[in-house]
Amino acid sequence: MANSLLGMAELTRPEIIHLLERTDYWAEHWPSPPQVLAHRTVANLFFEPSTRTRFSFEMAAKRMGAHVLNFSVSSSSTTKGESLYDTVKTLESMGFDAVVIRHKENNIVHDLASLVDVPLINAGTGTSEHPTQCLLDLYTMKQHFGEVKGLTVAIIGDITHSRVANSHLIALPKLGARVIVSGPRHLLPAEYRGPVEFMPVDEAVSEADVVMLLRLQLERYSDLALSIDAYHRDYGLSEERFKLLKPSAVIMHPGPVNRGVEIAGSLVECERSLINTQVQNGVLTRMAILEWVILGGR
Amino acid sequence: MANSLLGMAELTRPEIIHLLERTDYWAEHWPSPPQVLAHRTVANLFFEPSTRTRFSFEMAAKRMGAHVLNFSVSSSSTTKGESLYDTVKTLESMGFDAVVIRHKENNIVHDLASLVDVPLINAGTGTSEHPTQCLLDLYTMKQHFGEVKGLTVAIIGDITHSRVANSHLIALPKLGARVIVSGPRHLLPAEYRGPVEFMPVDEAVSEADVVMLLRLQLERYSDLALSIDAYHRDYGLSEERFKLLKPSAVIMHPGPVNRGVEIAGSLVECERSLINTQVQNGVLTRMAILEWVILGGR
Amino acid sequence: MANSLLGMAELTRPEIIHLLERTDYWAEHWPSPPQVLAHRTVANLFFEPSTRTRFSFEMAAKRMGAHVLNFSVSSSSTTKGESLYDTVKTLESMGFDAVVIRHKENNIVHDLASLVDVPLINAGTGTSEHPTQCLLDLYTMKQHFGEVKGLTVAIIGDITHSRVANSHLIALPKLGARVIVSGPRHLLPAEYRGPVEFMPVDEAVSEADVVMLLRLQLERYSDLALSIDAYHRDYGLSEERFKLLKPSAVIMHPGPVNRGVEIAGSLVECERSLINTQVQNGVLTRMAILEWVILGGR
Repeated sequence: MANSLLGMAELTRPEIIHLLERTDYWAEHWPSPPQVLAHRTVANLFFEPSTRTRFSFEMAAKRMGAHVLNFSVSSSSTTKGESLYDTVKTLESMGFDAVVIRHKENNIVHDLASLVDVPLINAGTGTSEHPTQCLLDLYTMKQHFGEVKGLTVAIIGDITHSRVANSHLIALPKLGARVIVSGPRHLLPAEYRGPVEFMPVDEAVSEADVVMLLRLQLERYSDLALSIDAYHRDYGLSEERFKLLKPSAVIMHPGPVNRGVEIAGSLVECERSLINTQVQNGVLTRMAILEWVILGGR
Repeated sequence: MANSLLGMAELTRPEIIHLLERTDYWAEHWPSPPQVLAHRTVANLFFEPSTRTRFSFEMAAKRMGAHVLNFSVSSSSTTKGESLYDTVKTLESMGFDAVVIRHKENNIVHDLASLVDVPLINAGTGTSEHPTQCLLDLYTMKQHFGEVKGLTVAIIGDITHSRVANSHLIALPKLGARVIVSGPRHLLPAEYRGPVEFMPVDEAVSEADVVMLLRLQLERYSDLALSIDAYHRDYGLSEERFKLLKPSAVIMHPGPVNRGVEIAGSLVECERSLINTQVQNGVLTRMAILEWVILGGR
Repeated sequence: MANSLLGMAELTRPEIIHLLERTDYWAEHWPSPPQVLAHRTVANLFFEPSTRTRFSFEMAAKRMGAHVLNFSVSSSSTTKGESLYDTVKTLESMGFDAVVIRHKENNIVHDLASLVDVPLINAGTGTSEHPTQCLLDLYTMKQHFGEVKGLTVAIIGDITHSRVANSHLIALPKLGARVIVSGPRHLLPAEYRGPVEFMPVDEAVSEADVVMLLRLQLERYSDLALSIDAYHRDYGLSEERFKLLKPSAVIMHPGPVNRGVEIAGSLVECERSLINTQVQNGVLTRMAILEWVILGGR
């Protein structure tokens, strides 16, 4: 079985720390990193639209010298009805060194990984896991605060449907961080994948070192049960609510941002926002991940 | 006129043998082949959806150091009504070194080749020819059996609409192989492009050294005139029918496979199946083809 | 503010001349130019379909050693509702060295350029500007005639909706050329962006050193107010009208050509046509532009 990146659930604490350290290595060598993936080939298989994550992986791989081949489909089309197993097996036979997969099904990467010999990278699956986003967030926290341990992270919004949140609910406690969740009751799960405290939004943002806003996936809800304006007022980081933050607290968001919904447009690029830094670190983190699955290190 | 790969009809026996020998060369140098196509540029023009063939060409070209630019359209859309001649002429003017074309029209690559100076590669046209698939199949047979001459190849399924079959009906006799065809009567042509023997399926698979199953192109038939289950029972390589094969016989399929239709799912990756080997050899064969059309050798 | 290429309006005469000279440099070094953009990364963001311009930029960038990442959307789809500002800001954070943008809105590249730090290249915006097409046309004129100054250029067709024409109406006078416009009255603007003379078509083609035919954007008109045949007869470069050209006059067209509409099919590749030369020069001109925005030179 190859060295796949399945989810934060499968990564041990030492493995997470190793990946964060290697991200530091790639940060130090930016923008002219050693071409350790020269002559290697990475496939991006995106079964859900995503420009930013696909670009981030493609940038990471190419900067390390790898070739990248892209495949993307809209949700409706298929590859002549071929199963994903057969597709990945085909890529394995072609000699790909890693396959990056985004898919709407929760367990598809886990299920595949035990059946193929090519390393897989989970680039977001269903509502279950988005480990590369989680790792880049952890790196960004560590970079800013020195360590993740001891931080209080408030995750605010639609926790139920957020694969980013679900990865963090597993990873943050592993690294010794405290997790607060907040948001509309009907968008919070009945059970959590790790230890969390629920708080009303105002209290959550006041307590937090990191205020992590989740994207309201407007395309997902047929009935949000509240208006966009009401969401912003009741759960968004409005300019008013921003005043409740501790002076040392920072803002994070996995992007893309709905300005004026999860966060006031004026706060997206404010001094306390790490949103663009997250994007920048995303490329570096994915370099560490590609190195890890292709060249080993487990 | 450039050194195009039009179809198996245009290739002489010595040219086919040359290409199979060069495939051996590229196999020996995998995964770090000499970068003989450095600074060269290949265009993939796919006017029918195909991930695996496009990826195979892209992998082949990039592994040899070439740049690859991809263009694909769904069948309905067009490039502002531009004719394919004008598109290819544009690519020629831009300095492309080869243009790989998949198209639904039978003769389009042949018609174009005499009008342009850039080498063209037929990556599948209509129901007429799929020479690169044919060459990789021939290489796979030669690799397994030592030579193609003297082999009995049973091609089973929808011969009428299969460009793979049509290329083989020309090529196999050129190399001294015997061709058996079998399948539903209404999916067999009235005339063949080379010498063939028709046999009922059970007899065909019993006689064959190579059982080559064709993809049932389910998207093509408005009325298949028989159910999928009936097709599998009557013409597919079921587990039951598999027992009729000679002990030395092998299974081939151009992919993607409809599991449980042309072939039982359990047989796709069995010891006697060369299906994944075909995919692997596809990249190597296309390296030989790219070398041949770009760097010469006719 | 980065060194963006916004439009011909923003380029000074010395800057235009500098870019034309650098195009000469890249022409001299074709097909093995120095890899001055090695380890650089260029994003192609095409919000309108365009294979030829996208390929031309991709070829230019890759030939200089750069990585290219492509993003294209059909007009209807969006990136989860993300604004173009946020998309470009994301690319900036990822470390892109230049972003090539085609968009249906006239001022979008201008508006963005003042807000981001990554250089932008206008690859065609609305009906306002298409500076890279204009520059390659100027280079082609200079290459053929020695200089642009003193030339009479007749631009014929749908001036109102042509971003190519609008760029030329600004650029040609800057370089000392005389501009004639002609075409159906309802496709001519009420006001021009530079000094022009209107003439009936026969007179215009008789006077011109360069007959520049514009693509009739058939997909744009719900009612063209005249038939295709009538357009060709009244405004197209028919074989008959071609006889009116001066012996030294040349034909240009930004492509893709509607054969038999703007121009008789038989004239597209005649001796006096520079249409394929324009395509060839397009790659070289875009190399000069990429060098200029990424490596400086203003």
